[in-house]
Amino acid sequence: MYSKGYTSKLLEEAVDQFASLPGVGRKSALRMALHTLKQPKENVEKFASSFLALKSGIKYCSNCYMLSDTPVCPICSNRMRNHSIICVVESVRDVMSIENTEQYSGLYHVLGGIISPMEGIGPDDLTINELIERVKAGGIEEVVLALSTGIEGETTSFYIFRKLESTGVRISTIARGVGFGDDLEYADELTLGRAIENRQAFKI
Amino acid sequence: MYSKGYTSKLLEEAVDQFASLPGVGRKSALRMALHTLKQPKENVEKFASSFLALKSGIKYCSNCYMLSDTPVCPICSNRMRNHSIICVVESVRDVMSIENTEQYSGLYHVLGGIISPMEGIGPDDLTINELIERVKAGGIEEVVLALSTGIEGETTSFYIFRKLESTGVRISTIARGVGFGDDLEYADELTLGRAIENRQAFKI
Repeated sequence: MYSKGYTSKLLEEAVDQFASLPGVGRKSALRMALHTLKQPKENVEKFASSFLALKSGIKYCSNCYMLSDTPVCPICSNRMRNHSIICVVESVRDVMSIENTEQYSGLYHVLGGIISPMEGIGPDDLTINELIERVKAGGIEEVVLALSTGIEGETTSFYIFRKLESTGVRISTIARGVGFGDDLEYADELTLGRAIENRQAFKI
Repeated sequence: MYSKGYTSKLLEEAVDQFASLPGVGRKSALRMALHTLKQPKENVEKFASSFLALKSGIKYCSNCYMLSDTPVCPICSNRMRNHSIICVVESVRDVMSIENTEQYSGLYHVLGGIISPMEGIGPDDLTINELIERVKAGGIEEVVLALSTGIEGETTSFYIFRKLESTGVRISTIARGVGFGDDLEYADELTLGRAIENRQAFKI
């Protein structure tokens, strides 16, 4: 039998699939399915092959665990970048966000998540051991921890800090403070308190 | 070369494709591509085959032009429905919306758009001639025009009215008025005016 309002199983199945994408409800999924129907066959095939190729062809960089088409990602294999500094992030998207700022020229290390006892994610489920090996292999001067705030992020940062403490490598975290364009009155107390504590010399 | 922030062409191409879907920006497209990467291979293949099957397998009902898996759609082939009344709508989605109300048991006719000189859409680009043939073939008692309001919808309704006038079939349009849950103060003047003009006997 058909579901409410549907006159085609093919349409219903396509809508179900589109609705499984993150942030897509059934109304948007229907729009997407009908949009797909209106496209030339080549475009629809190109769409399908794009993510099938992504799924089957993509690799994780053997050095930093960033997504890559090659065994070593273009960041790690770029000789113009500073190979003595590693920025530790949670996800692929964080690397992309930092790259977009164009303010960082070192390397990365993608953990693949943060330590979360609630979700059963421990240090061994992440690439923390690989990070420690990378640092111990030498040539690293600084590790920048750029993990999310909150208990889980802080726990993960602290865990990594303790593991790397003995190596003598400089360990830093990204600055916390009131964002550009943010109103002081809407900043939470922790952020505002930290921003005052870490105040910097005024520059003109 | 890679675009800003990207370390993989495969990822970039998948994001481009997802971003071509209606209502999807580049940030959402990235989320969708990364979500796809996390799924088991079977799910990704199922997603691809769902809309490839939709594109290659779906038909338009030869009677009402609704989407269908069969030459005649399940609505037109349902003997329990009233085959003497046709509701004329612009799109497939309108049929689904009306079906969801469960207040209508007649048949439909999907025009595939409305007359729009601005976009170069004339009566012959739509299924208006097919509608007229359907009505002239006999057995139809009423045609309900359920097109969008606005100049183009009214023009299309009027065009169809003129074409069907001579057949003697009853022609109606759906009621316009203030929607349930809408505030009077936010209703536009045209809608509110029409709602007062078409006031109905109070029922308890």
